[in-house]
Formats: sequence, C-alpha cells, structure tokens
Amino acid sequence: MTIAVKSYAAHSPTSPLGLFHFVRRDPRPEDVVIEILYAGVCHTDLHVARNDWGWSQYPVVPGHEIIGRVTAVGDKVTRVKLGDRVGVGCMVDACRDCGACRKGWEQYCEKGSTSTYGSKDRVDGTPTHGGYSEQIVVTQDFVLKLPSKLDLAGAAPLLCAGVTMWSPLRHWRVATGSRVGIVGLGGLGHMGLKLAKALGADVTLFSRSPGKEEDARRLGAERVVISSDKAQMKSVAGRFDLIIDTVPYEHDLNPYIPALATGGTLVLVGYLGPLQQTPVRTSGMVVGRKAIAGSLIGGIVETQEMLDFCADKGISADVEVINMQQINEAYERMLKSDVKYRFVIDIASLRAQA
Amino acid sequence: MTIAVKSYAAHSPTSPLGLFHFVRRDPRPEDVVIEILYAGVCHTDLHVARNDWGWSQYPVVPGHEIIGRVTAVGDKVTRVKLGDRVGVGCMVDACRDCGACRKGWEQYCEKGSTSTYGSKDRVDGTPTHGGYSEQIVVTQDFVLKLPSKLDLAGAAPLLCAGVTMWSPLRHWRVATGSRVGIVGLGGLGHMGLKLAKALGADVTLFSRSPGKEEDARRLGAERVVISSDKAQMKSVAGRFDLIIDTVPYEHDLNPYIPALATGGTLVLVGYLGPLQQTPVRTSGMVVGRKAIAGSLIGGIVETQEMLDFCADKGISADVEVINMQQINEAYERMLKSDVKYRFVIDIASLRAQA
Repeated sequence: MTIAVKSYAAHSPTSPLGLFHFVRRDPRPEDVVIEILYAGVCHTDLHVARNDWGWSQYPVVPGHEIIGRVTAVGDKVTRVKLGDRVGVGCMVDACRDCGACRKGWEQYCEKGSTSTYGSKDRVDGTPTHGGYSEQIVVTQDFVLKLPSKLDLAGAAPLLCAGVTMWSPLRHWRVATGSRVGIVGLGGLGHMGLKLAKALGADVTLFSRSPGKEEDARRLGAERVVISSDKAQMKSVAGRFDLIIDTVPYEHDLNPYIPALATGGTLVLVGYLGPLQQTPVRTSGMVVGRKAIAGSLIGGIVETQEMLDFCADKGISADVEVINMQQINEAYERMLKSDVKYRFVIDIASLRAQA
Repeated sequence: MTIAVKSYAAHSPTSPLGLFHFVRRDPRPEDVVIEILYAGVCHTDLHVARNDWGWSQYPVVPGHEIIGRVTAVGDKVTRVKLGDRVGVGCMVDACRDCGACRKGWEQYCEKGSTSTYGSKDRVDGTPTHGGYSEQIVVTQDFVLKLPSKLDLAGAAPLLCAGVTMWSPLRHWRVATGSRVGIVGLGGLGHMGLKLAKALGADVTLFSRSPGKEEDARRLGAERVVISSDKAQMKSVAGRFDLIIDTVPYEHDLNPYIPALATGGTLVLVGYLGPLQQTPVRTSGMVVGRKAIAGSLIGGIVETQEMLDFCADKGISADVEVINMQQINEAYERMLKSDVKYRFVIDIASLRAQA
C-alpha cells in the first residue's frame, strides 16, 4: 500500500510553506490510515518551520491538531474501524514502557515521545510529517476517538491547545469552587477559560491590554485583570489556587506570585525555548508554599478524557477556517495575535490543488 | 505576676549580643509560663540581630528553638500542666481564623503569624522576645508537648530546623521508596537526611565540597553528589521525586531541575531575603512537569507530629551545647559553617550570670 500525499512544507527557515509531495510510510499491522479533514495551526508549527529552536530538519510538514476519518486499518487494529472520526495530536508514538508511559504520561516519555512532525519513526526511522497533508499513518494507540457531537473544525485545536490546558487543570485538581487564573487570551488561553469554567472554577483572565472584557466573559471568565496595572493585581492578591500562564515569550513571572493563594501554583505552558531564563523572586514562594511549575501538552488517556468532556459540555475551539494556500498569511496574522482564536486549515483545499 | 528575666539581646545591627533585663508580659488565662532550659541557634537569629532583612526593631532577643519546663499556667490552660517538658518554635500566635490557620498552616496565616521574637503581641502590642532568656510566656495553643524520650538539648533544633524539613517531606508525601535529595549539610540539611531516611526514602546529599561522605551516610544518606561536578550531577538525572534546598544564600537552581523525576519538585527552604531573584530555565520544567516551590517552617499540628515521630524513631539533632556567653563567637563560627550541626545554648549559663 503506497500512500502518496500532497502536503505543505517548509524547505528552509526563510522560505514560505509550499506544496510538497511525499510518500507516507507503509502501514503496519497496528496502524490506522487517516484521511485528514482539518488541521489546526499552532505556534509551534511556525517555530519549527522557521527553526526558531535550532533543531528543525527540512522539509518540515507541520500540523499536530489533526481531525480526520479512518480509511484503512491494519490487521491488528481493534480501537477504531473504517469510517470513524478520529484525531491525532502532538505525539504519534512513545516507548510505552518507561515509568512515565506506564502512568499515561507519554508526553514525558523518558526515552522521548515521537512527535507528529519533526521526529523519526521509532520502527523504520523515517521522518514524521504532520497534518498539513492529505493523509497520515498512525499506530492505533495514538489515535483519539472523536465523539460524534464534536464539530470537526472546532475540535482540531483541542488536540494540542485543548489538552495543554486540560492536563494542568486536572493535574492540579481544579473543580467546583477552584479559583483559576489564565494568563493570555490566545489559542491556549481561550481554551483555558472554557475548560476551567466547565470544570466549575471561578475564572479570571490576566491580560496585558484592555478590550478583552466582552470576549473573556463570553468564554467563561468572571473578570479580567490587566496584568500591568498594579492596583488591579493587588485586588486579586492571594486569590488563585492555580494560574496557567500561556504566554509564549519572555515576560516577568514575579507579579503572579503574590496573586497565588497559599499552596497555589503558577503553571507555565508557553514554551519559551531551550535556554530562556526567567528571574524569580523566591521569597514570595517560601512565604506561602507557592510553586512555579511547567506542564507539557497531555497524555493519550487524558486527551481522550478531554475530548469526551468537551463533547459532553458542548465545548469546542473558536476557529477561523482557512484554505491551505493561506497558511503563510495566517502565520503572519498569528504573530500579530490577529485570530480569534485558532486558525484551522480545511484540507479539502489542499486536496483540490492541482 | 511580674516575670523579670535576664536575656541576651542585640541593641543595634553592629553591637555584639549582651546581657539585657526585661519584664515578660503578664500571663493571661490561656498562657503558659515556661522556664527555658535550652535554646537552639538558628541562622535567622543572626540575620535579625544584624538587621540583614531590614525590619529589625531593637533590642532583639533571638531564639525560636526553645525547650523548657512549665512553671505556671493560667486558669484556662488545659493542654499542659505544671512540670511538663515543652517546646516553643518560631511562632507564638496567629489569627487562628483565616483559611490558612483553619487548615493548620499557622505559618502562612493570612494576617501574619506572631513570631517568637521581633513581632508584636496580638493582644497588648508588646514586642515579642525569644529564647535567649530565662523564661517565656506563650499562649497554650502554641506550646508543643515534648515526648519524654527526647533529649532536651537535641530536641531544641527540631522546633525550627526539624519542622522546616518535616513540613515539605510530608506535604510532598515522602514515604517508603521515595527518592529524596537534600541540598546542603547544615542545621537544616542534617535534619533533612535523618527525617527523610526515617520516612523510608532513599536519600542523597548534594554538597558543594567533598569530605561529607562519612557524616552524610551516618545521618541517613545513601550517597553524596558533588553539585559542581557535572558528571556526578548527570549520573542522578531524572532521579528525584523531591529535592529540598536548604542553602541560605544566592546560588544557581538550574542544575537541580534535570535531577528531578517527571513530576518532581525542588523546594526552597533557605530564605534568601525579600528581594533575591534567581534566574530559572523554564524549559526544563515544562518538559517533565517539574516544579520549584517554597516552604516555610511548619504549622503547630505538624510540629507536634514531627516531635512524636522523632521520639518514636529516636531522632534528635546533632548539637554542640554552648554557654550563653559564647553566643557572639558561635555566630562567627556559624557563618563559617563550623558547627556539627547546630549550636544549642544551655540557659543555665545565663541563669548563673550575675
């Protein structure tokens, strides 16, 4: 079975993404072949396409918020069947045997999980390529089942943005009455507001700039605090059990520490690159048993749990659907935060391209 | 009842401690009058005596690791009786009504706990004075009961150094099989080794300098890792569920993050002063859901729990007993880490002074 696909790829850090033909690896007995319908556009796509983190191997076919339909299954596939609506997130494999994997924390696999793009397949060593393409081949254990209630385009960002917020909300036990802060209103932040609200929390948005009030409230926030306004920050001192900081560039963490309640945690999910160092005033952490932690996407079991929760609660991402051919323009708009709140590529537009 | 006492006090940031006479506040119905037998010498004593943190009010009578005997009780005292061996730690009161106090976290009292010295009494506003004195008056709820098995001098450091290590060990659920690292072998560190070992953990000492092997093993460590040796640090990569960092001066936290296991926490208990900022490389925290947290002494219930545990396990501090008159020399030796591992003042020497 030879699966030749069209895709959009970056061929260098400076070239725009353009049409790229390649052949997917031959399906193995536990593999699922997925016709891709939608692919969300994550900041990471842009970082890797442009080699911002220094380890990109070209060509890069980005895309790790994948929604599709099962078109073929290997002999040993039992989890999904032909025609099923499925999703694929940031990982397509992991060692499945280390302490982290056995806990369902494949994202923290001690041997390194296999990323949906920019990694090497664990079996045959071929480069992995992401969702900006017509089809993908994924081992069944890393295929998520999409509840029928979920909108296809709106579900795509759940696979990365959604679970990136869900995992810390669950790990730090957010429930009815929890006081949660979300820093930044972008792809991650808007999912954070929706999910925290649906879990029963009292939710606050921290933003640098005014004008977010209406959207924030619609998405689930009870209030908006302008993070640069010292009086507003003081008004929420000691309030939060959990603050999830989604900001993906260098910024001062210290103003959020006084906003934590005793025993509270500030969780960073906006990856700042491998070398970024942030000055932290530790005295405010000692006096109040406060913590700063990191969190990376989520495991397969919790991703499925999040999809089921979203279907149950009627939650999906707020998306702007674009054609594949608009991706370079979308990257520029994403850099200016000019999207509410996630671009999703309709892969039909790629399929139609000559 | 007028309780006139001799004490040792600092009268300015630069003067040595010397004899100071003052009158303790009149005991109230819930107060316990304690004849002080031993007082441990904590780094904080020196910091406050010398106004290192900028808020000292003179005269300062330090001492918050107090062991003594009950010599009088108010009408409403039910928790202790005349002749009981008791302890007093870093706090002599708190609001007892805020969320933190109601959880037994008086050290994080939202209105500020009353420190054993350098605070104001919550009822009459008089300055609090610590354990470098003949007697102290403390409300019964902040008096700890000393199990009869505990050595009096060796128990004094449990009231601050002991519970400062105990609280994070318990909060982060250290138990049989936990992998615990202790950074620094001083008053705090040596208690950390003993307590973590007694809780069933596999314990590692991190030290800057060699030569600690024999002592560390005797105190409970399975191994010593030289923190400046990159190969040794690499050999424990991903190992620790909990690392407790006792170092009370500025130092690089980043080498300890790779040593944490997935989900592990680096806890700072060495207070660095109000303004110290430490650069933290956050990427290593995101990739592994790792945390940096602070922890401050411990609450009254957990202090009692720790004392009972120590009695049960035969644990006390390694101390060098000194006379009150040696305190200034002891401070200089403490600054050079020239003590194994805690000075304790025999208050009989103060009582004998003309």
